[in-house]
Amino acid sequence: MCIAMTSKLNLLANFRIVLCQTSHPGNIGAAARAMKTMGLHQLYLVQPKKFPHTESDALACGALDLLQNARVCATLEEALAGCAFAIGLSARKRQLSHELVSARQAAAQAAEIASAQPVALVFGTEMSGLSNAELDLCQLLAMIPTNPDFSSLNVAAAVQVMSYEVRMALLDESAGQMHTANPLATNDDVEGLYRHMEETLVKIGFLNLAEPKRLMQRVRRIYARARLEKEEVNILRGILKLTQQPRPPESIQ
Amino acid sequence: MCIAMTSKLNLLANFRIVLCQTSHPGNIGAAARAMKTMGLHQLYLVQPKKFPHTESDALACGALDLLQNARVCATLEEALAGCAFAIGLSARKRQLSHELVSARQAAAQAAEIASAQPVALVFGTEMSGLSNAELDLCQLLAMIPTNPDFSSLNVAAAVQVMSYEVRMALLDESAGQMHTANPLATNDDVEGLYRHMEETLVKIGFLNLAEPKRLMQRVRRIYARARLEKEEVNILRGILKLTQQPRPPESIQ
Repeated sequence: MCIAMTSKLNLLANFRIVLCQTSHPGNIGAAARAMKTMGLHQLYLVQPKKFPHTESDALACGALDLLQNARVCATLEEALAGCAFAIGLSARKRQLSHELVSARQAAAQAAEIASAQPVALVFGTEMSGLSNAELDLCQLLAMIPTNPDFSSLNVAAAVQVMSYEVRMALLDESAGQMHTANPLATNDDVEGLYRHMEETLVKIGFLNLAEPKRLMQRVRRIYARARLEKEEVNILRGILKLTQQPRPPESIQ
Repeated sequence: MCIAMTSKLNLLANFRIVLCQTSHPGNIGAAARAMKTMGLHQLYLVQPKKFPHTESDALACGALDLLQNARVCATLEEALAGCAFAIGLSARKRQLSHELVSARQAAAQAAEIASAQPVALVFGTEMSGLSNAELDLCQLLAMIPTNPDFSSLNVAAAVQVMSYEVRMALLDESAGQMHTANPLATNDDVEGLYRHMEETLVKIGFLNLAEPKRLMQRVRRIYARARLEKEEVNILRGILKLTQQPRPPESIQ
């Protein structure tokens, strides 16, 4: 399981992020950081307005290596050389549209193709996105679902979301379940707790066994949802034990 | 279908983003923009270092309304007032962890609860994330899966990913169909319960405030996982009330 997960994440090496004619060098740095947090490393820049630049470096913040290794290209064709599949990101629907899918669906398709060949995710300029000529070089158009009243996603934020979706697509489904390693209480442990609790509730006068209503069922429901760990049962029983203990007379006013 | 989808997206109004002690005002602006692109509008700032600030305004870039309506709070408790469910974002596993789920699973749970009550997504400082005391006020800990060699997600980028996942969860057809019929306890209700419980544990001699260890955190963890309903808090407080009550002398052997 663990081995399978690792080998799939190795496919991240088959992804490249292509930024076309980015205006603000800060966005290039922030995009590099976003990529690296998700394990992507190959950055291609098509005619960046200002690069290299101190603002890129400042915002890369630990992802300087991606900037240093970034390839600056004269054309999108050059940036896509060797790629089997290019996905263009778009904030709007196009009149003469490509196949249009959500970011999540695009990531799933990309993950499949990346198992054999390089894949590119292509992002346009801050102001107008990808041109139609640039889109023509892509095989698929992906859209990140946004608020229709304000779809102005920053380009580095779009890189973050797409890189995240690619990582999620490569992770095993089971990897999403990060449950704790602590051993859960057994059924016997938990039933013992309920018996102890019932006795205590009777002793303190909260539960009247002649008219129990559904109190113990309600209590069970709370702890069932909590999925108690072994040690937690011990804590709760420790509390119950002291609750039952008759107090020394001086504690009574 | 379309009507159902629209009404689910209306649940975005039940989400608030809480940023704790943010150092860089630019991050607050970028977070506001990230939120608005996904249709979230309620921004709460706990002790921001600099706010309002020109850098926040510059990076909000069309989401100035969120900054203008942002609520600045003195404490996280204040920011969570009225919330039924608070999800803390963390970049690392904690030793004595809350229930830990992926960002996607957290969004799915949040989407269910938001169909009836307000939900908060809580983000810590740029340098060190959420403190343990802050996490204690949350019911669930969520982690955005990142590159283990470089998990340094910018806080606004983390807000972008979580807001995106929340939008996706509400777009998902399956989301929102499983919510419980009973109203969940608010943050205020649950904090009142914990205070009552702490007092009681001291009275019965189970908790020594001079050497509390992590007892209250462990207790919080149990009930956080249970997602207490309003009436369940009343039951538990009823038990605590009788636990504190001095017994009549004849009950002592």
